[in-house]
Amino acid sequence: MVEQNLRNAIRDIPDFPKPGIIFKDITPILKDPQLCEDIVDAFVDRIKHLKLDVIAGIESRGFLFGLMVANKLKIPFVPIRKQGKLPAKTVAESYKLEYGQATIEVHEDAFPQGSNVLIHDDLLATGGTVVAAAKLIEKLGGHVAGFSFLISLDFLKGEGRLHRFSENVYSLVRYN
Amino acid sequence: MVEQNLRNAIRDIPDFPKPGIIFKDITPILKDPQLCEDIVDAFVDRIKHLKLDVIAGIESRGFLFGLMVANKLKIPFVPIRKQGKLPAKTVAESYKLEYGQATIEVHEDAFPQGSNVLIHDDLLATGGTVVAAAKLIEKLGGHVAGFSFLISLDFLKGEGRLHRFSENVYSLVRYN
Repeated sequence: MVEQNLRNAIRDIPDFPKPGIIFKDITPILKDPQLCEDIVDAFVDRIKHLKLDVIAGIESRGFLFGLMVANKLKIPFVPIRKQGKLPAKTVAESYKLEYGQATIEVHEDAFPQGSNVLIHDDLLATGGTVVAAAKLIEKLGGHVAGFSFLISLDFLKGEGRLHRFSENVYSLVRYN
Repeated sequence: MVEQNLRNAIRDIPDFPKPGIIFKDITPILKDPQLCEDIVDAFVDRIKHLKLDVIAGIESRGFLFGLMVANKLKIPFVPIRKQGKLPAKTVAESYKLEYGQATIEVHEDAFPQGSNVLIHDDLLATGGTVVAAAKLIEKLGGHVAGFSFLISLDFLKGEGRLHRFSENVYSLVRYN
C-alpha cells in the first residue's frame, strides 16, 4: 500500500541532471503528510528488529526521513555531510565520481564505539556515497547494521557493493 | 522548558567556519529524540494560529525540523535548495555573500498561488538566505505568513530585514 502510493508520488524528470538520465523526483512525496507518515511507519516496521542505536542520514535528502525515523524509534540521528560543513572534529572519506571525487564527513564524537548504525539516504544508485558512509561508520568503531532507502535503482547494481558491510538493505520502492 | 533544554544542547564551536566566529552546532540536538519531539511541539504551538498551507524549508538544515513540523500540522513541505539541485522547472533568486553570491531555487509548481507559506531554517544570522527565500515565495504568488528558526543570532540584526515580508518571526532560542 505505502509502496504503491510512493511509486505513484515519485515523479520522473527526463534529462536531469544531464541528457539521457531519468531523475526520480521525491519532492511530491513531501507534499503529502499522510504518505510521509506511512513512509516513516514502513521504515520502522522493517528495521525495528535490528536493535539500532543510531540512524545516520546522508546530506541532504537523507536528512528528511532519517531524522523522522530516528525520532520514532527514540534513538539519536547523526548527519553525514559534505566536506567542510560539520563544525566540530570530523573523520572524512573520499569517493570517486564520474569526473573527480567527493568527500563526506561525520563528527568524531557522533556515537559511541560498538554502536549499531543504520545508514539512510533517499535513493540508492551506484552506491558510491553510501559505501563511503559505511567506511566512515566503521572508522569510528561503529557497526553497520543496515541501510534504508526510499528508492533503489536496482539496474545500477549498487546493492551488491553494500553487502560487505551488511546484508540488511531496505528499499521501499525498487526500479529494475 | 524546551528553550532551556535546547540552549543546553547547542554546542559552541569557536573559529568555525573561520577565525573569530563562534558557530552554533545543532548536531547534539539531533541525538536527543525527546528534545526533537519537544521542539516540533513548540513550533506547532507557536505557528498553528497562522492557518498555514505550506512550510518551505531551506537546504539543508532547514529540512530537519521543517518536514517534521509540516507533517505534524498535516500540510505540505516544500524544499528550497541550492542552485542546480531541484530537477523540475524552478524559479531562482540570488543574494550576496561576504565574497561573491549564492543562488537558491524552488520548484515552479511547489504550491498554489495565494498559499500561506511559513519559511523555516535552523538559524537566522544576517538574513540573506531567508530574504531570498521570501522573495522566491512571493515570485510564485505565495504569501509569506511567517518565519521559524531554532536559533536567532539577534546581535546580527537579521530579523529587521524580514519584517517587510511578515511580522511573524518565531525563534526558539535567541542570542543577544
